[in-house]
Amino acid sequence: MKAILISIGNELLSGKTVNTNATYISSKLHELGIETLRVVTIGDDAAEIQQQLQLALQQADVIITTGGLGPTHDDITKKAIVEFLGSHLIFKEEILHKIEERFRRRGSQMPAINRNQAMVPADAELIDNPVGTAPGLLFRRDGKMIFVLPGVPREMKAMMEDFILPLLKDQGKLEPIHVFQYRTTGIAESRIYEICHDLFEAHPQLEVAFLPRFIGVDIRILVKDSALQQMDYSRFERELYGRIGKYIYTTGTEELEAVVGRLLKEKGWTIAVAESCTGGLVQDRITNVSGSSGYFMGGMVTYSNDSKVKFLGVKPESLAAHGAVSEVVAREMARGIREAMGTDIGVSTTGIAGPTGGTPEKPVGLIYIGLATADTVVARRFVFVQDRRLNKELGAQAALEMVRRYLLGIPIDNDPSSKKESG
Amino acid sequence: MKAILISIGNELLSGKTVNTNATYISSKLHELGIETLRVVTIGDDAAEIQQQLQLALQQADVIITTGGLGPTHDDITKKAIVEFLGSHLIFKEEILHKIEERFRRRGSQMPAINRNQAMVPADAELIDNPVGTAPGLLFRRDGKMIFVLPGVPREMKAMMEDFILPLLKDQGKLEPIHVFQYRTTGIAESRIYEICHDLFEAHPQLEVAFLPRFIGVDIRILVKDSALQQMDYSRFERELYGRIGKYIYTTGTEELEAVVGRLLKEKGWTIAVAESCTGGLVQDRITNVSGSSGYFMGGMVTYSNDSKVKFLGVKPESLAAHGAVSEVVAREMARGIREAMGTDIGVSTTGIAGPTGGTPEKPVGLIYIGLATADTVVARRFVFVQDRRLNKELGAQAALEMVRRYLLGIPIDNDPSSKKESG
Repeated sequence: MKAILISIGNELLSGKTVNTNATYISSKLHELGIETLRVVTIGDDAAEIQQQLQLALQQADVIITTGGLGPTHDDITKKAIVEFLGSHLIFKEEILHKIEERFRRRGSQMPAINRNQAMVPADAELIDNPVGTAPGLLFRRDGKMIFVLPGVPREMKAMMEDFILPLLKDQGKLEPIHVFQYRTTGIAESRIYEICHDLFEAHPQLEVAFLPRFIGVDIRILVKDSALQQMDYSRFERELYGRIGKYIYTTGTEELEAVVGRLLKEKGWTIAVAESCTGGLVQDRITNVSGSSGYFMGGMVTYSNDSKVKFLGVKPESLAAHGAVSEVVAREMARGIREAMGTDIGVSTTGIAGPTGGTPEKPVGLIYIGLATADTVVARRFVFVQDRRLNKELGAQAALEMVRRYLLGIPIDNDPSSKKESG
Repeated sequence: MKAILISIGNELLSGKTVNTNATYISSKLHELGIETLRVVTIGDDAAEIQQQLQLALQQADVIITTGGLGPTHDDITKKAIVEFLGSHLIFKEEILHKIEERFRRRGSQMPAINRNQAMVPADAELIDNPVGTAPGLLFRRDGKMIFVLPGVPREMKAMMEDFILPLLKDQGKLEPIHVFQYRTTGIAESRIYEICHDLFEAHPQLEVAFLPRFIGVDIRILVKDSALQQMDYSRFERELYGRIGKYIYTTGTEELEAVVGRLLKEKGWTIAVAESCTGGLVQDRITNVSGSSGYFMGGMVTYSNDSKVKFLGVKPESLAAHGAVSEVVAREMARGIREAMGTDIGVSTTGIAGPTGGTPEKPVGLIYIGLATADTVVARRFVFVQDRRLNKELGAQAALEMVRRYLLGIPIDNDPSSKKESG
């Protein structure tokens, strides 16, 4: 089964509103195994609506329109579709009562203009709107279904959940699709492809998608139920882990800071953070996790050299000899924050976020990350791309990943530019 | 001039990714007076790409595609378009060098697969990609322009701003549209409307849009050049400031932290921050500004009570009597971080980010913000909505806004739930 979505509304084309309706609907259809072929966003224009409907009827089994069902003059979806499908509008008393009742409950009188919404197509099934005034419509033509929904997200979602998704599920022709996700960090999309493409190609029944974010790549694998039954998926997964397992931080949806938090809780360990170039972002991410106060004691943003010396015990000689952005200082910072906060782990970042402050030896994007425990102090060198915010994000991600790897005993020398050293 | 946007990528059709690119592009075109007729979102499918391109060429003067320019096998946009337009690909040594150089700067080797990206259409103008590897393309056919851009928002935006928008502006057929922006914080969209709607209604030549973000509302006013000549805009602006001026932190595009940084620099003042519930986010935002090391000395994330006492000199009696989330502790934290870091201003946050930890007297979302200088210590009380991340963002925004208002001598009692107190 294939679907086409038609989003209607001038506000969607002037850049004022993000089309989140289409994202929601296509994700719900995807879970049922219905592929969305196309999302078309058009204005409140009858000719355009009719043209897109005609195109859609040639390719899709399910067509869902959203928007343009309001009572005002620029909401012309219903009229345009009724005309195109050769139907006509009739007045329904019981719809009017429902709308009037809605206004009454809110303590106001129905404006005359809402009377329009009680005019409905003679041959459409009406879809109840539990949270608004405009009913949804379902037309059936040659075995195809055309759903006409309001654009207000709450109303559209209520109709999808109460009526449309159960109806489509009951069509029975749909085969469930299984979704596997592997979230990675520290490895580029093209590198994953290089390492794994023969594995993916040997399994054409798997639909593999890379979803790259700056701080990592999510690998998403979709497989039809019947195909899954006929293969040894766990063998495939073992092979995948054999190749890139150390970069995978979760098979769920959680962020890296949540994984780190879970590992710390499991070990009963506490953590503290001293940041320079990342400016508080590592701690911001750690504290995005509810319950982080159980293992995160606190930290510092030691932006000035003075504060590094005063609060972290970084040696003035180290600053003089190596500069603040150095492995030595990263190690001293990690050790210092661990001692100051009395935690099991101390983590540090020091680098040049940019865009200014770089030199040939210490370019913008150079970041050292330090990690200290009771019996080990390590530091790693990274060089990222040249945008201040991105350098901060990549640095914070690398710091969290370093903690994850340390806690799991995975070698933390993954960055191609890093030198392995410990002090 | 009319535009059609074609967004390409399977991930956009499975509901995994929201199509914010289309929103951004259509809003930028709208500002130039170019109407977006349609946004079509399709998968990585050559036939579909070609069909939509054909339809678009019949209706639009400007066609912009995004997505599918990555190096991997499922990125087929370039090939499909080149084939449809009757062009062919040639290898460009200098593009390859650029890509290799990008990888080299990061300290890694270019994967072989990225070589694809140096294959470019013989008759397309190349659009420089300052932040990624794939260049953009511009084809010209029968007076129409077809722009082919990567789907990564940063890369797409850089090309729009550096190349495409200036080019379209120069087409000369367009009546210039002037854009005025007023970024506000601390006041709701509906409240702005309530206070200002008669002013807006008295100026129908102004197209007023509210762009609400959680941490503030941007008011955007568009006006055609001819209409602007015929009105006294500065009088309108004075009237607007008279009503909501204290909430406006910039008429430019800068973020609040940049405004605060500018004010600090003008005064020659330094700042330090002690955060509890905001977990580092205030400092993260301050350090997003290049040059912030000139006025931001550093700060702490004192998540535990111990660290508040040890590093900030918060009195154990205060914690015992009022709890960590209290005006007294907010004031002591602000004073403490100011003294510890030796700065002109100290700022603090302490609150309950949630979702757990709330009580009837101290609900989730309750945040106190403190500000200390040489001769004053104040604290304000805020109650925000009940989502952890949002509470952190609103708290960080309120802290920065408190600094801005203090530096400008604007009363800082705007929050309806705040009590005015100083200690």
